[in-house]
Amino acid sequence: MTSPDSQRIAELWAGRYGSAAAVPQAITPTLEGLLQHRSVRAYAPRALPADTAASMVAAAQSASSSSTLQAWSVVAVEDAGRKARLAELVGDQRHVRECPLFLVWLADLARLDEIGARRELARDSLDYLEMYTVGVIDAALAAQNAAVAAEAMGLGIVYIGGIRDQPEAVAAELGLPPRVFAAFGMCVGYPDPERPASVKPRLPQTAVLHRETYDAAAGEPAVQAYNATMSAFYGEQGMKTQGTWDTHSVHRVRGPAAMKGRDRLTEALHALGFPLK
Amino acid sequence: MTSPDSQRIAELWAGRYGSAAAVPQAITPTLEGLLQHRSVRAYAPRALPADTAASMVAAAQSASSSSTLQAWSVVAVEDAGRKARLAELVGDQRHVRECPLFLVWLADLARLDEIGARRELARDSLDYLEMYTVGVIDAALAAQNAAVAAEAMGLGIVYIGGIRDQPEAVAAELGLPPRVFAAFGMCVGYPDPERPASVKPRLPQTAVLHRETYDAAAGEPAVQAYNATMSAFYGEQGMKTQGTWDTHSVHRVRGPAAMKGRDRLTEALHALGFPLK
Repeated sequence: MTSPDSQRIAELWAGRYGSAAAVPQAITPTLEGLLQHRSVRAYAPRALPADTAASMVAAAQSASSSSTLQAWSVVAVEDAGRKARLAELVGDQRHVRECPLFLVWLADLARLDEIGARRELARDSLDYLEMYTVGVIDAALAAQNAAVAAEAMGLGIVYIGGIRDQPEAVAAELGLPPRVFAAFGMCVGYPDPERPASVKPRLPQTAVLHRETYDAAAGEPAVQAYNATMSAFYGEQGMKTQGTWDTHSVHRVRGPAAMKGRDRLTEALHALGFPLK
Repeated sequence: MTSPDSQRIAELWAGRYGSAAAVPQAITPTLEGLLQHRSVRAYAPRALPADTAASMVAAAQSASSSSTLQAWSVVAVEDAGRKARLAELVGDQRHVRECPLFLVWLADLARLDEIGARRELARDSLDYLEMYTVGVIDAALAAQNAAVAAEAMGLGIVYIGGIRDQPEAVAAELGLPPRVFAAFGMCVGYPDPERPASVKPRLPQTAVLHRETYDAAAGEPAVQAYNATMSAFYGEQGMKTQGTWDTHSVHRVRGPAAMKGRDRLTEALHALGFPLK
């Protein structure tokens, strides 16, 4: 248990969970990379290799897709003016302005719609919540593969859920046709070495990994333990966080006043061509 | 352009796109692994290492999560009886019965609900489509990291969207509390070397990667090219596929009769505690 390898694994586990409980015996270089993910919001003013987006998209397209329908797309934004306008639309997030590459990941049912229209074929399923869900899942699987590829290239990323704050304005900015929805954004760039980000701890595995059936009783003790882990983390980072993780997380979901416009997501999707039957 | 490295990259690209167009100059081992993904439905009768689920979940938890709410969970099913019952519920898919480990990925708002209930805090946002979307995206990002970790360990996976065919029955089988939805399943196991799966080509990048704004005009020529690529693939694989990719894909979304019950997803989610406001 004191070999260099097991020591390294224990350190990776401690970074992710705040403790080295239940560490596996062995670990692949890929898992080692995944465990070191942190969201990067501070970027170096350094240009990306020309084929960055192409490589990330090849990774993204290699992810699974429901029935190989590939119900997603991505818009790569590098234009400074457009990044600045999008930064405003997502709640004035400066990293959207400052990153060299901003990706907007789309649930895209327009491609299937156009194929059907050209060939005069029915495509009524596109009107259902199921196909919205398929598009969102397809986009998320693709984006996560792209994130993994980017981090393996030495880049940093952060997801931007704020792209859902004003869906119609985002759609207008990007020229999205009906049946296309910007599900989330992603900043991409070289991390600024002078403003490094830290690996943020996650809930104990007991909270999220259920065996055979859902274990609701595992939640509360795991949350209590995680509150302590996160309070230590906030302290180390010098973060002024109100209360413990549990209370400030529930505060974030307290109601429409805290939703930054996303309480009207259904209305926005209707306007964008998703009837959500 | 004829170095062993560039040759290998060209081959990987050709496997994914059916041609070696727009190949990047360099490629990381991680991207190389991602490009080789194929969905595995034939498993060897070989037990998994004891810490497989724990390693996959550590990878899953390392993915980004909206506001670190971690609005997902996973149920790991190994019991033969339960796998057999779930196999029936997803449309009699034998790989669900035969895989050693079946993971059911959950959009999980119950943890936040319980925290709020215990502490008597409002959590009205949980009733909105936005939070359903957050749970589904969180689950998908987590699952894809787990898939990447599994494949790096030499395992194969396939996603099972059929878990949405009968959401209430799946919830009953897994003992899911209200506000928890099984978004998709995932078979995990060692690929059967005697029944290998192939890398399936994807749409040309021009169809999915848009620059600055959405390019609707790029779709049709890309679809035409992809039809030819896929027809060649079906032929190589000896697959009897009706028509070209475009027509059989639209046929899959022709309407409720083809949705295997998923046309009632809204109704099912209402019953499971997602008002979807």
